[in-house]
Amino acid sequence: MNYSTPTFVADELKARNNIRRMAEKAKANGLLFRPHFKTHQSVEAGEWFRSEGVTAITVSSAEMAQRFAGAGWNDITIAFPHNLHESEAVAALAEKITINLLFDNPEQAAAVAAALRSKAGFFIKADTGYHRAGILPGDDASINAILGAAKGSRLRFKGFLTHAGHTYRAGDPEQVLAIHRKSTQALALMKAGCLDAFPEIIASAGDTPSCSIASEFQGVDEIRPGNFVYYDLMQWMLGSCTFHQIAAAVICPVISVYPDRNEALILGGAVHLSKESLQIHGGETVYGLAVPFANGKWEDVQGDDYLTALSQEHGILQTNSPWAKNLKPGDHLALIPVHSCLAADLLVAKNKFAVVR
Amino acid sequence: MNYSTPTFVADELKARNNIRRMAEKAKANGLLFRPHFKTHQSVEAGEWFRSEGVTAITVSSAEMAQRFAGAGWNDITIAFPHNLHESEAVAALAEKITINLLFDNPEQAAAVAAALRSKAGFFIKADTGYHRAGILPGDDASINAILGAAKGSRLRFKGFLTHAGHTYRAGDPEQVLAIHRKSTQALALMKAGCLDAFPEIIASAGDTPSCSIASEFQGVDEIRPGNFVYYDLMQWMLGSCTFHQIAAAVICPVISVYPDRNEALILGGAVHLSKESLQIHGGETVYGLAVPFANGKWEDVQGDDYLTALSQEHGILQTNSPWAKNLKPGDHLALIPVHSCLAADLLVAKNKFAVVR
Repeated sequence: MNYSTPTFVADELKARNNIRRMAEKAKANGLLFRPHFKTHQSVEAGEWFRSEGVTAITVSSAEMAQRFAGAGWNDITIAFPHNLHESEAVAALAEKITINLLFDNPEQAAAVAAALRSKAGFFIKADTGYHRAGILPGDDASINAILGAAKGSRLRFKGFLTHAGHTYRAGDPEQVLAIHRKSTQALALMKAGCLDAFPEIIASAGDTPSCSIASEFQGVDEIRPGNFVYYDLMQWMLGSCTFHQIAAAVICPVISVYPDRNEALILGGAVHLSKESLQIHGGETVYGLAVPFANGKWEDVQGDDYLTALSQEHGILQTNSPWAKNLKPGDHLALIPVHSCLAADLLVAKNKFAVVR
Repeated sequence: MNYSTPTFVADELKARNNIRRMAEKAKANGLLFRPHFKTHQSVEAGEWFRSEGVTAITVSSAEMAQRFAGAGWNDITIAFPHNLHESEAVAALAEKITINLLFDNPEQAAAVAAALRSKAGFFIKADTGYHRAGILPGDDASINAILGAAKGSRLRFKGFLTHAGHTYRAGDPEQVLAIHRKSTQALALMKAGCLDAFPEIIASAGDTPSCSIASEFQGVDEIRPGNFVYYDLMQWMLGSCTFHQIAAAVICPVISVYPDRNEALILGGAVHLSKESLQIHGGETVYGLAVPFANGKWEDVQGDDYLTALSQEHGILQTNSPWAKNLKPGDHLALIPVHSCLAADLLVAKNKFAVVR
């Protein structure tokens, strides 16, 4: 690997440790563990999960389900509210493997019911505070409309599913835990309301901040975190992981240096990292953190060496540490991405992906 | 085309009109026209340029140069400062077609000089105010260092090249013009300083806002705009185009509607649109503008129907107009992207691309 252009690099040992830690936490808490594969989108990384005993996974599209079904995964939840234009695609998948879908309106249930030729499971998407998608607690009319549309079909009600994505906006681990408690309580209540009629349903939760920080999962039966396999700058700053647990970086070449303005130009832009940003020091917008990359490994943080501007292929690095100030054209650096899922999406499918051990 | 998942759609007639208008403006001003193909990244869209007489193009990477060379383009400028790790790649290209490179440090010139087996052109990247990359006006030492490193090699000095990308931060067309005048004056002075020794060099400029809004290009010999083929929300708001000149949209299915909060969920997230955003009404961050899509065409703006939140696959639409409030699961809408270049990069390579006529 010569890293001539930006390359998403996964540290296999760190990633396997992240998987093992989460699998053990799930086991210790009696939880089903159905990790989300949208983060890594890699068949190779998927095998690291298999060797930790994972047999059931989560994805975010029918296309991703097809891809991982092709790689031998036969129990997949598509945790994106069903797209009416993919009913036939999911019906075809359901003939081959165990598929669970996600509904938050009765049209979805009716469309899938009409398309299915074999059985499929479904979850009702619960909106436990994120307000992105889902049915609000207490909205029994909507729940009953979905159950009614599924009734008598090949669809089997599996339970309620939430994603408490508002933990990503938390300021510290205490706030993450407060959101986690409130969200899982709401989810458990929604499940309780249907237990008489459907005694086998489960409650499925699992954003990475909650799953990483919480030690208590009362009322939850299954967790589906995804980002934790790699973590990233956002998760580190949120307190979900240590710096040394971050298992992915984007290796980029330095193109030019501008000592007068304490900046360097790297080949590494929005098409490699995405324009996901976060605010540091209470205001400055950054797109990644640069650290040294040597002998196939990235090293410790040297200083405030942040990417402060991104265009299509250009990244502007603020050179703060002595290491960064000494960078020369042609050097490589490792960028800890703000959001590893989006960087992986941009690079893994283009085979700009490498595993270091 | 059933638009089951987000699809980048180009309106061929509008795009051809945009190309023709820019080609005519270049001709009327005696300018070489070397459009940037990083915006569309499509061999098919490239042919629309060819039928307007375009024979020379700009790209932003060696890989993109290889792709368009394969599609019959034989005069290509790679307008990204040379990456030392791609010297062999550009040397191989230079054996087949006319290639111009971009340097802003002598290491680049030395590396290419050592790799070349046939001649290649180079421009010196001028920093005329954007402060992203390039040599500042008056920095004769850096200019001479690059010229010195190229001397005696197969490299031929072609002139100075700038990208006044700071026009994208302008508040109105008057500010764009002020930046354009200042930038092109600086560029022309840099060229003038080398004319005695290199009488055939040119001055190459050409961001889309300047090329769209300006009618006067004194001191400029070549323009290289790219975005203008499609334009987008950002360019419209900047005054570079009218709404009806926007020639690209991303067609997305509606997944669910939430009338209580005047929002809808669409399948259309960061992996389809990028997280490029802009501020409207003096503060609100938006990721795209939704308009109706019917009979293979998108229609006029109905109201403030903006995408206000994006995650990996989810887009949250604020439903403001009566049309948006009436959307139903399964409907399609057209999203005018904030930045068409980034949306095209995400979708065109995945064949999620369609042309409407």
